[in-house]
Formats: sequence, C-alpha cells, structure tokens
Amino acid sequence: MFEIKKLDRSQQELVVSKINQKTKPQGALGMLEELALQLALVLGNTQKNHIQGRLSLADPIQIEKPVMLVFAGDHGIAEENISIAPSAVTRQMVLNFLDGGAAINCFCRLNEIQLEVIDAGILLSIDNSELTQQSLGKGTINFVSQPAMSNQQVERGLRFGKKTVQKHLQKGCNVFGFGEMGIGNTSAAAAILSSLIHVSVADCVGRGTGIDDKTFAKKTRLLEKAIEFHQHRLGDKFCDPMEVMACFAGFEIVQMVGAMLATAESQKIILVDGFIASAAAMLATKLYPASRDYMIFCHQSEEQGHQLMLRHLQAKPLLNLGLRLGEGTGAALAMPLIRAAASFYNDMASFDSAGVTTV
Amino acid sequence: MFEIKKLDRSQQELVVSKINQKTKPQGALGMLEELALQLALVLGNTQKNHIQGRLSLADPIQIEKPVMLVFAGDHGIAEENISIAPSAVTRQMVLNFLDGGAAINCFCRLNEIQLEVIDAGILLSIDNSELTQQSLGKGTINFVSQPAMSNQQVERGLRFGKKTVQKHLQKGCNVFGFGEMGIGNTSAAAAILSSLIHVSVADCVGRGTGIDDKTFAKKTRLLEKAIEFHQHRLGDKFCDPMEVMACFAGFEIVQMVGAMLATAESQKIILVDGFIASAAAMLATKLYPASRDYMIFCHQSEEQGHQLMLRHLQAKPLLNLGLRLGEGTGAALAMPLIRAAASFYNDMASFDSAGVTTV
Repeated sequence: MFEIKKLDRSQQELVVSKINQKTKPQGALGMLEELALQLALVLGNTQKNHIQGRLSLADPIQIEKPVMLVFAGDHGIAEENISIAPSAVTRQMVLNFLDGGAAINCFCRLNEIQLEVIDAGILLSIDNSELTQQSLGKGTINFVSQPAMSNQQVERGLRFGKKTVQKHLQKGCNVFGFGEMGIGNTSAAAAILSSLIHVSVADCVGRGTGIDDKTFAKKTRLLEKAIEFHQHRLGDKFCDPMEVMACFAGFEIVQMVGAMLATAESQKIILVDGFIASAAAMLATKLYPASRDYMIFCHQSEEQGHQLMLRHLQAKPLLNLGLRLGEGTGAALAMPLIRAAASFYNDMASFDSAGVTTV
Repeated sequence: MFEIKKLDRSQQELVVSKINQKTKPQGALGMLEELALQLALVLGNTQKNHIQGRLSLADPIQIEKPVMLVFAGDHGIAEENISIAPSAVTRQMVLNFLDGGAAINCFCRLNEIQLEVIDAGILLSIDNSELTQQSLGKGTINFVSQPAMSNQQVERGLRFGKKTVQKHLQKGCNVFGFGEMGIGNTSAAAAILSSLIHVSVADCVGRGTGIDDKTFAKKTRLLEKAIEFHQHRLGDKFCDPMEVMACFAGFEIVQMVGAMLATAESQKIILVDGFIASAAAMLATKLYPASRDYMIFCHQSEEQGHQLMLRHLQAKPLLNLGLRLGEGTGAALAMPLIRAAASFYNDMASFDSAGVTTV
C-alpha cells in the first residue's frame, strides 16, 4: 500500500560540515544538532530550492504548516474496567478537543500547530463539521477472547490514515504530529508491544493514566490471557504487524499507522508522541523499516512499556517531563525544539562570517 | 543588600485544586504541573488582579516581557590554556551576540525573548551602544595563586547585576533568563562548587566545551592547587559565598548573582541556564536561601559538576538535550515550556465546564 524510500544520506557530510561551521564548539548543541541533521536531510530532499536535485549549503530547513492529527477510538477491553475512566470519557474528551478546552488545544495554539481531530471509531458518533468522520466502527471488540477487528478494518484504517495526511500534504504541510484519545488504549499498546517484540506482558503493561494496584494486577492478568488466546493465530507469523493489529489494535492506532506511513512515503517529518503513538510507530517500522528515518520521538512517557519501545526503536526522546496524558501533548510541546534546530541551522553565523577563532 | 522573602505558599491548595480540576488525570502533565504551581504562586503574589491581596481561581499566570541577560567576562585562569579557545573568543562572541549571529540570538528571536548583552568585564572593551557597559575590570586575575578579584569588586558586581534587573522591572518584565560568555568560566564554576559544598575538585571539574584528556588533567591539577592556595583565606568561613566569589568567581558570575537576587527580591521568575549560571544560583541561595523559591532550572548540562549542583539545589531540570554551550541557550529553549505551563493553567477547561466525567 506504501512505497517508502530509505532516507537519502548522500548529503550528510555537507550538512554536518555546515553544522560544524556554526559559531559554537562541535556538538555543543547536543541533540539539537542531530535533529537539525535529520530535518535538513528529510526536508531537503523534497524542497524546491536545492540545486540539481542536491542539497546546497544555502538551503534552509523550512518548517511548513505543522499539523497535529489526533485520532480517537474506543476499545472493547474498556468494558473490563481496567482504566481510571469509562469509555464515555473518550467522547467527552473529543467534544472538549472540538471546544478548544483540552491540553492539546492549549499547546497547539501556543506553538502554532494546526489541530485536526479524527473520529477513527468512537462508541457514540458526534455530529460536528470540525470533526473528521473516519469511523471504522463503534469501538473495537474486547480482544481478551476475540480479535479487536477484522483484517478488512485494518486495511481500511491504513487507507483512512493515508487520506488524512494527503489532505495536508496538498496544503504544503511538512511536519505531522500524531496523538490519540481512547479509553483503554494503553492496554492495546501493551499487547501490541508484547507480541511484536516477544516480551512478557509484565514488562509492557503500565498504569495508564493512574490505576491502582488491584486494577493494575487485573489489567496484567487480562492482557496475559489475551496474548495466550491469540497465540494460535499469531503463531509462527508472530511478528506480522497486520495480524497483530487485527488482534489488539484500536481504530485510532491503525489509522495512525497509515498516517505515519503516508508521511514517510512523502518524505515529511513524523512527530511521535508517547506510548500509544509509539506503538503505532513500532507497527509502522515493522511494516516498512525505512519509515523510521522520518520519525522524531518527542517525549518519554511515564509508562514503563514506552521505555522498552524507545530502546527497541533506538530512539532518544527530546523531552522527559513525566507526562502521561497522550492527545499528542508531548509532540506539541516538542515543536519549539524542532523550530529551534531549524533556526540555528538556518540563521546562526559561521566562524568565518562572524570572525570567530575556530575552536 | 537584598531583602528576599520566602515564597508565600498560603494559596498553594487553591492553585493545586485548580490544576486538579483541569480535564486530565491528576498529575498527567508531570513537571508542567509543578511549574504551573510555582509560576502561579510567584507571579500571583505580585500581580494586580488578585482579590484583597490573595490569589483567586480566576487569576491567570501572566508571562510579561521575558528577557535574557547574557553577562560576559574574561578569566585570568584562561592564560593557563585549559580551555579549547583563547580569551579572544569571549570578545569575538560578544560581537557575534551584538550582530545577532549566535545560538542565543536564534533561540531568543524564535521564542520571543528580549536579549540584553552585558560587558561585565571582558579583556578588551567594545564600543557599541547595544552593549551594556558594566565592566568590573579587564578580566579577573588568575586565581591559581591570587584572588580573582577584590571584595569591592564583588560588591560592585552585585549592585551592577541589581541595576540591570531594575531597568527591566520598570518595563514590566517578570521572567528573567540568565546566561553568560567567558572563556575559562567552567574552571571558575568548578572551583566555586568545590569550595561551597566541600567536594573534591575531581568531582566538580569537567571538559567545558570539549578539552582533551591532557588538558583535562591539567585543569584538574590547577584547580586543586587553587583550592589549596585559598584554603587559608576561606578557612573556617569556608562557606562564605562573598569570599568564595572574591577567590574564584568571574565578573559575569558575580553580576549574575546580583541580578538573580534582585529578581528574587522583586518576586519574579529566575530561569537558570547551565553549569555557570547554576554556580551563580548556588552562590545566590547560599547568601539568601529564600531566593531558591523563584528559580526554575532549565536544562541539565553535559558538565558533570552540574549534576552535583542540581542535586544540591534539589532541582530537576526541564530539559536534558546534551547541551554544553552556555550563553543562556538552555534557558531560552525552555521558555516555551514555561509558556505551556501558563497556557494549560489559564486556558484548559475544567471537568465541570467541559462536562467530562471526573477521573
């Protein structure tokens, strides 16, 4: 469904030399230097002003019309009461997003990111022209003893995700943030992680937005049961991400995977939020390893499984603020660092131009 | 010279209850919640719109005209060649600041922070009306076997720092960032740290902006010699920060201490940058422990001594990006997080107002 090229690194030396000529000791801007390199290579490949198809030293990093895509979906497993809130809260929070009152609204407004909210499959639909209607169903099936969705739903979800991204590509957007809302989706993400990398549920499961010890034990037990139940299907194709999605994913996760892959396909930047968005990123990279080159991991969630994901993806997140909210909040908060990397790359003087002794 | 009040925490419960009513699980915004609490208490105490001298739930956090004060000074110890660059680079970088070409210029422009550059005592003065002339001398004395400066210079430096802050207070600024430039100043900061908290030089010294093994060994040896030399003077008043400053500080550090204390005195926010600015923060808190209440630690430097400082100050920095540049860059990069804390505190809906089930 996607054609994803590995990042063209032929101009890497050129970009690194430009960064090293800036008036600072080599490496003194730490992770911002790696970020500038990635941004210059990813966006430079598709920007118009490079000479003869190659980056030139004069090419700036241009961040254009960043957008935050927040996919919402409900989860059948929420009926087991293993979250701090009931499924009704998914819908309530979507209304809150549409009303501009949630954390992600505040951070998108502040950091000048356009926000789009997508109904990927919440229980009770919402009639609002601001909401993108891409429902795959009224919540997934409880995956403890049935697949969460059909293979057709998975494929449709990937296409829906791609469609969302294409709309913004046409408007010139080149940075896509990914967030989500869905009561129960840390359970889905933990099951996905456990089955994708063959690690015990106990190492993947966390407290979501803050469940107590008893609920935590129940959540772990249920997820172990679910993994065992689906073992026969995943069997020797244990790592087929399409099957893993059908078994455990949420509608919002599937659409995020499609949207991330479409972003990578068009060689634009993917800003990955926390635990759930990283589960989508893992699925995307299992399907198309080259998509990893376009991803920036924005923050480290409090969820223990997230650290495991980041290690697996060899990712060092930009922020570590103890967030455990989702919605894309970590990605929105990292946006100023993306702009900062572009700004030093574009605007800082070189040793030569500033007459500073090379250090 | 300063009158610094402990932060009034009588309204803490009110502020926490406001934060907990926001449409998110309790604590889900992690460090941003602690930040919002500190901002609301510090700035709320001096803002006009609170009722009968007390904060009200309706009071927003207002960030007004943030400024970055970058103090520059030269260090006698630089003559020992224990930095990657010669003292001439201090002046060259000040010219770069004035020309808008350094990293701190990029980040201040991007994050809408006014930048003021102060000559606190560089070797060769610069005739430029954009540069604040507050020189305490043409660089400090090499402190290996003499005091870096006189007690009069320390006192004058504190007053100069205070003057700089007062100018911006009159314009309505309520957030002050602190940065510096000075070849050799990681040596000064390490000596200050070692003498203030009685820890061996080996645990305090680092590689600055990137010296090699041989230079690192020399730097350590020289600092040990310096600490030993001044031991007789610091003696049983080993912890008198005024004496520690006279022995080891730079002119930029002394002025930063004065400016930080003036900010705390006026109950405004202090944004502390990396290793050097944190040395100033340690000196400030040793002189006036209450000043700690007004400080936000913006980033963790690569310099090992900085981690020791942060532990000592019980500070958890907002960013950890592997920076080792100084100039206030870490503080400027943290500014969007300060604004994000204010934005969720001010603008996020409550469970009640949004009709979301309390979680």
